[in-house]
Amino acid sequence: MSELELITGGITAPRGFLASGVSCGIKQEPRRDLALIYSKKAASVAGVFTTNRVQAAPVILSRERVKGGTCRAIIVNSGNANACTGKRGLEDARAMTARVAEGLRLNKSDVLIASTGVIGTYLPMDCIQRGIDKAISNLSDRGGSRAAEAILTTDTCTKEIAIKGKLPSGSDYTIGGMAKGSGMIHPNMATMLAFITTDLAILPPLLNKALKQAVEKSFNRISVDGDQSTNDSVFLIANGLSGNKPIVNCGKDYESFLKDLKEVCNYLARKIVLDGEGATKFVTVKVEGAYSEQDAVKVGREVANSNLVKTALFGSDPNWGRIVAAVGYSGIDIAPDLIEVTINGRTLYSRGQPWISDDINLLSGREVVIEINLNQGEGSATFWTTDLSHDYIKINADYHT
Amino acid sequence: MSELELITGGITAPRGFLASGVSCGIKQEPRRDLALIYSKKAASVAGVFTTNRVQAAPVILSRERVKGGTCRAIIVNSGNANACTGKRGLEDARAMTARVAEGLRLNKSDVLIASTGVIGTYLPMDCIQRGIDKAISNLSDRGGSRAAEAILTTDTCTKEIAIKGKLPSGSDYTIGGMAKGSGMIHPNMATMLAFITTDLAILPPLLNKALKQAVEKSFNRISVDGDQSTNDSVFLIANGLSGNKPIVNCGKDYESFLKDLKEVCNYLARKIVLDGEGATKFVTVKVEGAYSEQDAVKVGREVANSNLVKTALFGSDPNWGRIVAAVGYSGIDIAPDLIEVTINGRTLYSRGQPWISDDINLLSGREVVIEINLNQGEGSATFWTTDLSHDYIKINADYHT
Repeated sequence: MSELELITGGITAPRGFLASGVSCGIKQEPRRDLALIYSKKAASVAGVFTTNRVQAAPVILSRERVKGGTCRAIIVNSGNANACTGKRGLEDARAMTARVAEGLRLNKSDVLIASTGVIGTYLPMDCIQRGIDKAISNLSDRGGSRAAEAILTTDTCTKEIAIKGKLPSGSDYTIGGMAKGSGMIHPNMATMLAFITTDLAILPPLLNKALKQAVEKSFNRISVDGDQSTNDSVFLIANGLSGNKPIVNCGKDYESFLKDLKEVCNYLARKIVLDGEGATKFVTVKVEGAYSEQDAVKVGREVANSNLVKTALFGSDPNWGRIVAAVGYSGIDIAPDLIEVTINGRTLYSRGQPWISDDINLLSGREVVIEINLNQGEGSATFWTTDLSHDYIKINADYHT
Repeated sequence: MSELELITGGITAPRGFLASGVSCGIKQEPRRDLALIYSKKAASVAGVFTTNRVQAAPVILSRERVKGGTCRAIIVNSGNANACTGKRGLEDARAMTARVAEGLRLNKSDVLIASTGVIGTYLPMDCIQRGIDKAISNLSDRGGSRAAEAILTTDTCTKEIAIKGKLPSGSDYTIGGMAKGSGMIHPNMATMLAFITTDLAILPPLLNKALKQAVEKSFNRISVDGDQSTNDSVFLIANGLSGNKPIVNCGKDYESFLKDLKEVCNYLARKIVLDGEGATKFVTVKVEGAYSEQDAVKVGREVANSNLVKTALFGSDPNWGRIVAAVGYSGIDIAPDLIEVTINGRTLYSRGQPWISDDINLLSGREVVIEINLNQGEGSATFWTTDLSHDYIKINADYHT
C-alpha cells in the first residue's frame, strides 16, 4: 500500500457520501446497531453475496435490487441477522427499505439492506423504524466512523479505510470502506459485511466486474472458522462526483481503479482476520507450484481451515506434519514427495525428507507465514487465517439466551 | 445389537487367532506400543485405507500387499506414524514386516503393517526389531486386550468387541474387533485404525466387498475434527476355522455376515466418537428427505464438522441457526423453506418458521440427537460426532517436543 495515500473519513471520505450510526435498541443501549449510508447523487452499485443456499432476507432483497445497477442508500442493522425468518423476515426487510426511501424521498428499489447478528429471531420492527428516522436525521459527511461502529457484533474494533487515488487519465478520486468481521453476538453467525464507497464515475457492469475480481483475492481468501454465513455481503457504490471521465471499458483507468480497490479489500480482509474471534496469531498461507490457481486455492483453504493446524499454531508448534496432511486431503492431484513446507522462513519438510527445527522460538511472534510449494506448476494463492484458541471456544459456546 | 451374542476376547475371540501387545520404547515405558496379530491358518484379507493423497509408509505397503487377498499377520506400532518419512520410512516398514515373517516363518507378502503417532520422525528401528521378537514370543489366544492397548495414542480407553454369529446355512462363527480413535500423541495426527478378525470362510473379493460396505456407513460416518489422517486403515481377516461352507457369492450367508460385520464396525466407530479428544457430548446427526443418500452424506458431514455447531453443543446451546447455515453451505441443491431441524425431539425450525425452545435443559445430557429433514426426497444418512471443547484445544495445542 506504499504508493497509496491513506486518509481519514472511511466511507464518507469520497465526495457526496453521508452516513450515520445510531442506537435503536436491537443490541443493549448505548451500543450502536443501525447504520445508514447515503449518496447525494444516484450511484452505480455492485454487490457480492454469500453462496450459502440458506440466505437471509436482506440478502435475498439486496441481491435482487443490485441487479438494477443503481443505488442511493444502504440500511444496515447489527444484533439480528433476519435469517431463517421466512415471509415475515422478507416483509420486515422490505419495510425497512421503504421507511428509508420515504424519509429520504427515494425509490424503494434504490435502497439496499444488510443485517448481521442472531439467526432465527424476528426483527423488533418498532424500534427499528424509529431508529431509521433517527439515522436519517443524523446523516453527516463525517458519519463514517459511527456507521463503522454500528455494523459490529463481537468485533473488538472498527475496520475502516480511505485512500486517495489518481487515474492515468488525470482525475483524483477517493475510495472509502468499512467492514465487520466474524463475530457473533450472543449466539450465531460469523458474518462478514463490507461497504465500499467511491466518487468515481464508472458503468455498473464494470463496477461489478471490478468488485468480483477484488473480492475473489481478498474477502474470499480469509477464514476464521470455515463456517459460511447466511448473511455475507459486500457492496460497492460509485457516485461519479469526482468528475472523472466515466470508465466505460477495461482500459488503463479501469486497471488503475481495480488495483486500488484490491488494496482496500485486502486491507479490510486482513483487518477482519486480525480481529478474528479469539485469535492470537495472524497466519498467512502461501501456496505455490500448483497446477492451477484453483488447485492452489483448494490447498490454501484446507490448510487455513484445519483445526489441527490451527490448534498447533495456537500452541506455537511448527507442526508441518498436520500441514502436509491437510494438503493431502485437499482433493487435488499432488505428488506427495515434491511438497515443500516452510514456516517463518525455515524449511521443515522437503521432497519426502523431514527436517527438525531446533528453533523453539520459531512461532513465538504473532505473525506466522506458512509457505507450501507443490513443485508441480505455476498456480499460486494466498490465504489469511487465525489460530484456534481457548477464547474461540469460549466466545462460541456462550449460552443462547 | 440386541440379537447378537456379545462375548469377551476381542480380536482373539475367533478360532485360530493369536495376538500380543508389548512395550518396545517408542512411547514412554511401561506403555505398550507394539501389537501383533497372527492367524494360525492362511486367511483371506481386505483393507480400506485413507483417501489422503499423502500416505504413510505402512499404508503404501499394506495397500499393495492386501491386493494379494491373503494374510497371516499384522504388525502395528503406536507413537510414531512413519508418515512423511520418504524412502527410509518405506524401508523401515518393509524391515518390520520382514522381521515378523522371519520370526513366524511366513512369506513377507503375508505380513501387513499399520502405524499411528507422530508424523515426520523416523522409527527407532533397533527398539522396534527387539520389540517384534518380544511380540512374537508373547503371542497368545488371550492377547486381544493387550494388543488393543498397544495401538492407542491419546485414547483414554481400549475399544474392543467380539460377537458370536450364526449363518443361515447353519454354522456358528465369531467376529472380533479392536480400534483406536482420533487422538494424538504429543503432536500430530488424528488417526483411526481398526482390526477385525473372523473365523469365517469367505472368498477375498467378497470379504473386500463386505468391508467396504460396512466401513462406508460406520467409520466413514464419524468425525471428531474433520481432519483426515495420512494413516487411517481398517483391516479385516477371515481364516475359515469356523468350518462353515465357504461364502462364495452374495447369498443369504453373505448378507447375514454383512449385517453382523456392520454391527461390529458401528460399535467400534461409536466407541471412537465417545472417546473423541475433549468430547463432552455424543452427537448423532440424522439427515432425511434428501434427493439422494449422497446428498444426505454431504449435509451430515458439514453439520458434523462445523466448528460453530460443535462449540454451540459444548455450550449446551440448541443453536439450530448454525445447523441450518451449515446445511446451506453443504453444496447440495436444497429448498431452504422446506428444512426442518429437530434437536432431542424438539422441532426448532420448520418450513421457514423459527420456534423458540423454552426448555433450557434440552441439551443438558451427554447425548444429543440432531434430526434434519430436507423434505425433498428419500435420501438419508446418519453421522456421529462430538462437540468442540476447551480440552480439544488443550490436547491439540501441546508443544511439539
